[in-house]
Amino acid sequence: MSPPILSSLPVSLDDIRAAAERLRAVAFRTPLLHDTPLDQRIGGRLLIKAEPLQRTGSFKFRGAYNTVSRIAAPSVVAWSSGNHAQGVALAAKLANKKAVIVMPADAPRIKQDRTRALGAEVVLYDRLSESREAIGAAIAERTGAEIVRPYDDPRVVAGQGTVGLEIVEQAAELGLVPDAVVVCCGGGGLVAGCAVALRSLLPNVSVWAAEPEGHDDTARSLAAGERLSNLPGVRSICDALLAPTPGVLTFELNRQLLAGGLVVSDAEVREAMRLAFAELKLVVEPGGAVALAAVLSGRLDTAGRTVAVVLSGGNVDPALYAEVIGERGDEPGRGP
Amino acid sequence: MSPPILSSLPVSLDDIRAAAERLRAVAFRTPLLHDTPLDQRIGGRLLIKAEPLQRTGSFKFRGAYNTVSRIAAPSVVAWSSGNHAQGVALAAKLANKKAVIVMPADAPRIKQDRTRALGAEVVLYDRLSESREAIGAAIAERTGAEIVRPYDDPRVVAGQGTVGLEIVEQAAELGLVPDAVVVCCGGGGLVAGCAVALRSLLPNVSVWAAEPEGHDDTARSLAAGERLSNLPGVRSICDALLAPTPGVLTFELNRQLLAGGLVVSDAEVREAMRLAFAELKLVVEPGGAVALAAVLSGRLDTAGRTVAVVLSGGNVDPALYAEVIGERGDEPGRGP
Repeated sequence: MSPPILSSLPVSLDDIRAAAERLRAVAFRTPLLHDTPLDQRIGGRLLIKAEPLQRTGSFKFRGAYNTVSRIAAPSVVAWSSGNHAQGVALAAKLANKKAVIVMPADAPRIKQDRTRALGAEVVLYDRLSESREAIGAAIAERTGAEIVRPYDDPRVVAGQGTVGLEIVEQAAELGLVPDAVVVCCGGGGLVAGCAVALRSLLPNVSVWAAEPEGHDDTARSLAAGERLSNLPGVRSICDALLAPTPGVLTFELNRQLLAGGLVVSDAEVREAMRLAFAELKLVVEPGGAVALAAVLSGRLDTAGRTVAVVLSGGNVDPALYAEVIGERGDEPGRGP
Repeated sequence: MSPPILSSLPVSLDDIRAAAERLRAVAFRTPLLHDTPLDQRIGGRLLIKAEPLQRTGSFKFRGAYNTVSRIAAPSVVAWSSGNHAQGVALAAKLANKKAVIVMPADAPRIKQDRTRALGAEVVLYDRLSESREAIGAAIAERTGAEIVRPYDDPRVVAGQGTVGLEIVEQAAELGLVPDAVVVCCGGGGLVAGCAVALRSLLPNVSVWAAEPEGHDDTARSLAAGERLSNLPGVRSICDALLAPTPGVLTFELNRQLLAGGLVVSDAEVREAMRLAFAELKLVVEPGGAVALAAVLSGRLDTAGRTVAVVLSGGNVDPALYAEVIGERGDEPGRGP
């Protein structure tokens, strides 16, 4: 990988610093957990950015607010069945704008209700016969609402990049500099924003995208040097990370900034969720545990190194969570 | 309640400040969560001190370290089947002392293993035929180890009081002053220490002990003005809060400093655990959720007020947690 010319990238450190200013009064500076029992498991120092504690339970609020707060139109529209929906809904509420969220009619009722509870109007569509993009575009056309994309927008990427900025700052407060940082990756907005911040500030850091098996489009695209898609129909427990193809903007950043992609199995994700429960006392959703899973399952050389991971969200269905936590994992000492 | 003469109490604000100094390099300053969706439920501002994120997963490490680090003897002994065991074990490890922990032979294997993993020697006893106090005292006599009591020691109370000190500081960083603070209560060390700090610094704050039904010895003792015991044999989900009687030292403090006791049912505790899961993304053990349960179930007037609660720990058996989270609670919007 040749060194990137960071100043020529479509999202800059200055953009992320400006986003951090906008977010200062509204987003949480989530803790960077450290000195946890997981250090022993990796034989190094593990720093854990706890975005389940962010507003709406995931990092998505950061990019949403950084975008929505700069939009002149009085209303915004977005499509999402998950974390982006809640992020945009709360961002619009705080920015005194109306939000319309396009969600599949079969999305879990709790996600619809939570989005409505944040003040958004929810428009349902039939996932099999309709296109959410077309519905969203029609709403934008008809109402003058501006579309807030989930990742392929420099304002969104800059907002997510504040996670990387905080990792650098909070590690420095501990007297530490991360050698490597691993970030969950769906469309790639979070890892792209983090990579801009991290590689601008820490010359020697390596930044990795973590993905679930069958949804490793970014890992394969990084290896191939071009955007490749996932095969359709592959299931994963990681409902938050199922974008079919890397974003155009996010891949442009990621191909220049990332060290590569790490791919984990659903079983490894479940074990990471159990360890976050047992050792960190944090609720992490499957897609939010992928980076931790990559590090715990030995995908990266961690011996003697300082490695940061982002836990990106904690919005998980109670029944699924109960199933995962109730399973017998490989935790040493778990006995009768 | 007449105003206490705080300077004449057996634990002072200065003791707690000294404990905070000792703990600065080793304990975590756990976050004070705020602006969460739970504000809407109580019609006020809820501040949530997140001690599940403390080392060893509970506040117990604070008092244990404040005590163990001041002991001259090269070894310490304690009895506990739960959080105090792990707190003392880690404190001894960090203070380069040997720890012996007396645990019931039928304690969950994971708790035994975790205590050993922290470097302690575990001595098992038969709960039905042996006295752990007698075993601990015999070990102390034979080896010269000093006993670290779970609550009835001014050093332990001062260490736990750093939770209250941090609540005052962290609320002030948010521009807030708590009107009321609710703290989980077993033997009463945490609430006593918090009350010393809070009532020394905030003249108008009211501090409440929260207990599970059937284990409301402190609530009844406060009402009666003397130490009363629980009836034996009453079961509760709150395994961390089952001390039979208020401590002598802790009741001396609590009777002068507390506004009273709040008592909650196991069902209310389970609902609080579910809300901590869904809205806070924090794993909270039953005994650690009692104060939150008291506030959410309306035991206290919260309308328009700023109320702080302590979530005291997160060490919960995975099977029990899965059972509680998998239950259908009363959360609005939880649907199919």
